Amino acid sequence: MTATLNRAIASFPNVFDPGALSALPDHLQETIRRRNEVLGPGYMLMYREPVEFVSGRGAHLYDHEGNDFLDVYNNVPCVGHAHPRVVEAVSRQLAAVNTNTRYVQEALVDYAERLLATFPAELSKLSLACSGSEANDLAMRVAKFHTGGEGIIVTRWAYHGITSEVSRFSPSLGKGSPLGPYVRLIDPPDPRLAAPGSTLAEHMRAQVRGAIDDLERHGYRLAALITDCAYSSDGIFTDPVDYMQGVVEEVRAAGGVYIADEVQSGFARLGDSMWGFTRHGVVPDIVTMGKPMGNGVPVSGVVFRPEVSEEFGRNVRYFNTFAGSSIPVAAAAAVLDVLEEENVQQRVLENGALLRAGIEELTRESPYVAEVRGRGLYVGVEIVKDRETLAPDRGRAEDVISDMRDRRVLISASGPVANVLKIRPPLAFDSADVTRFLETFAEVAKERL
Amino acid sequence: MTATLNRAIASFPNVFDPGALSALPDHLQETIRRRNEVLGPGYMLMYREPVEFVSGRGAHLYDHEGNDFLDVYNNVPCVGHAHPRVVEAVSRQLAAVNTNTRYVQEALVDYAERLLATFPAELSKLSLACSGSEANDLAMRVAKFHTGGEGIIVTRWAYHGITSEVSRFSPSLGKGSPLGPYVRLIDPPDPRLAAPGSTLAEHMRAQVRGAIDDLERHGYRLAALITDCAYSSDGIFTDPVDYMQGVVEEVRAAGGVYIADEVQSGFARLGDSMWGFTRHGVVPDIVTMGKPMGNGVPVSGVVFRPEVSEEFGRNVRYFNTFAGSSIPVAAAAAVLDVLEEENVQQRVLENGALLRAGIEELTRESPYVAEVRGRGLYVGVEIVKDRETLAPDRGRAEDVISDMRDRRVLISASGPVANVLKIRPPLAFDSADVTRFLETFAEVAKERL
Repeated sequence: MTATLNRAIASFPNVFDPGALSALPDHLQETIRRRNEVLGPGYMLMYREPVEFVSGRGAHLYDHEGNDFLDVYNNVPCVGHAHPRVVEAVSRQLAAVNTNTRYVQEALVDYAERLLATFPAELSKLSLACSGSEANDLAMRVAKFHTGGEGIIVTRWAYHGITSEVSRFSPSLGKGSPLGPYVRLIDPPDPRLAAPGSTLAEHMRAQVRGAIDDLERHGYRLAALITDCAYSSDGIFTDPVDYMQGVVEEVRAAGGVYIADEVQSGFARLGDSMWGFTRHGVVPDIVTMGKPMGNGVPVSGVVFRPEVSEEFGRNVRYFNTFAGSSIPVAAAAAVLDVLEEENVQQRVLENGALLRAGIEELTRESPYVAEVRGRGLYVGVEIVKDRETLAPDRGRAEDVISDMRDRRVLISASGPVANVLKIRPPLAFDSADVTRFLETFAEVAKERL
Repeated sequence: MTATLNRAIASFPNVFDPGALSALPDHLQETIRRRNEVLGPGYMLMYREPVEFVSGRGAHLYDHEGNDFLDVYNNVPCVGHAHPRVVEAVSRQLAAVNTNTRYVQEALVDYAERLLATFPAELSKLSLACSGSEANDLAMRVAKFHTGGEGIIVTRWAYHGITSEVSRFSPSLGKGSPLGPYVRLIDPPDPRLAAPGSTLAEHMRAQVRGAIDDLERHGYRLAALITDCAYSSDGIFTDPVDYMQGVVEEVRAAGGVYIADEVQSGFARLGDSMWGFTRHGVVPDIVTMGKPMGNGVPVSGVVFRPEVSEEFGRNVRYFNTFAGSSIPVAAAAAVLDVLEEENVQQRVLENGALLRAGIEELTRESPYVAEVRGRGLYVGVEIVKDRETLAPDRGRAEDVISDMRDRRVLISASGPVANVLKIRPPLAFDSADVTRFLETFAEVAKERL
């Protein structure tokens, strides 16, 4: 990395180094220079050679020259880029009217009922927001009102969003972005971190207990444990899941609530259920969701147990201008339509299994692959210097990503050291896409892994 | 108000009282009952008899029976409900592709350049977010990084949004929503509040000086003064404007920055300029915008002086998934197109003058109207018990609003006691709309004012 890359961005995986600008094609150089002139702080581009797309369909993106890139990274266009069902529903609503939640809208009520029907009965109230960050911000605000506590427990490299408050419990933003004094970090559920003779469940429970004790020692009562059900930024840890019940028992015993952040894992991403938390055998107190919810139209949500949101509702009105207005609701409803009509969860399960099996097959003998993790269409491949020390190898991971990108297959990386390949296509990913991915990955793995 | 209305909502103007549900038409009752079952905390409906619309055009909204309501309240659909230019641009983009800011998008750069061209040269960096709340949250986060201070000064009944942090400096959310200990309140620029013999400019400057002193006495250095350039929730105070230079001198002398919140006043709302701050003769350090920016598609923005955002950019990356992606940018660019092509600012100036003159004419003799305030298409009418005591009359204001609604003209109220009629139509409001409004207002004023 050159000195032009500041520390805020340098810690992020797979980021374009502005110092390398002059090596890019002319048109790209010019656009990026103009972009650097006008955009505010903290923006960055992905890939050693950034990409620009003019159209998309399914899991495919097309550049100015019509080149077909396979998108194995974007989770927002979950039912596929420019899915006709979503395009049609949103276009129709745009041409009709867009009113906010202070007006009666039957479509909002219909949507809320449909969405809540995918949750256990205890989770029966829906609030809408614009972004995953706003959803997590509201969830934590409500948790603090309900519990009267302030303390927050998150995993060591968690990312929950970018509002002032949420950034204070998002350690993956790096050292430049201060954590709240009321925040404690625990390991993600990586079985290798449990002490010899100890189970993952014991390790996780002991960590949460320790974090609660330490918070109380510093005068903070627990408000909430919040976890991404796929631990995306920690490096993708989807299995095993048997630790969560004990963890949540500790949280509730201390008067806190459990918030399941489904921004990454929700909407059938993990294949065996609509929501990641279902796999953990625990009904959370609050669930948040975002990215795939409107297939790209900004919308996010928070689902509550009513007894948890009651105190907040008594004291605070919450009006989020755009949230729950007709356009985002039309998009979100169309996404539910497609999830049902195309039986997406089943497709995710099948193609996810094919994808993971193929990757495992191709990396089984590699000295540089420590683990292939994940469920459904969310796969993490941990790249290391060797299998003995398990020392992370960021450089090799970036070489793989860059080689894949040069072959027009888009993936990225995750984890505290950016050494975990993040393979997370739109859920529209079909079996032909799996084949193309594996063929390309085989070429790259042959050289790099 | 019945006991069913909790204190969070009771303080808000023109809110439907759920205790009155059984008096509504059957279909509405049923939808609202279902809504109450599924929606989370803090939601509310407007009007004694809430309304549902199925289509809109210009400043008109149509219900299920095809009744034509005149919208004199909504600022989000600024260029008009379902404006064909916006519908077309967004529909086209939806059918093409939606990528985020980590990919190169020439349209994003084009938009940023166009938008920044409407600002003084000092304000040269744009960040995008999803909501006005997120914009103000980011603005304050950056202000704190830049100044190293924490203290915030806002007007006494300000509203800046609903993230955890922004709610802490939004006193209009009421006593149930705690302010930060580092927040100080000053009067809005209401000339009647200046002591006899003192000017508004002196009064405002002294208040800001006092707030800074008090913050410092409590160990807080000033981060920012943030003001809504139309003081919407304070009761709409647009004139005079000659106090702001002195105020900002005090803020900067204390090491703070001035944030102009243009969520309400921006995009030509006040008629004589694109941005409200222009009227004050001061170039802010940060400007935030939201509601009208995408005509209903969720998008908001923050414009910075580069020296103010530099420190934040060195330490923090800011990625807001939906913000700046292709769909919101398409909407925002179409809004700029219409503002230019339809010469909206000029139309606002002309129709705003007609509107205000008409209202003044109709209320000149009323014992219950203290003041008619505002600029462009933003008018506040202060309703009082009598012109001597100026005691606010919330009940009478609500009667006016309700009578107007029964005649299918939609307005609402503002101010700490909800006694200021808030007359703020889409900027598509034309001279025929002005006439219809004034005819209806004349009928209602005859009885109520």
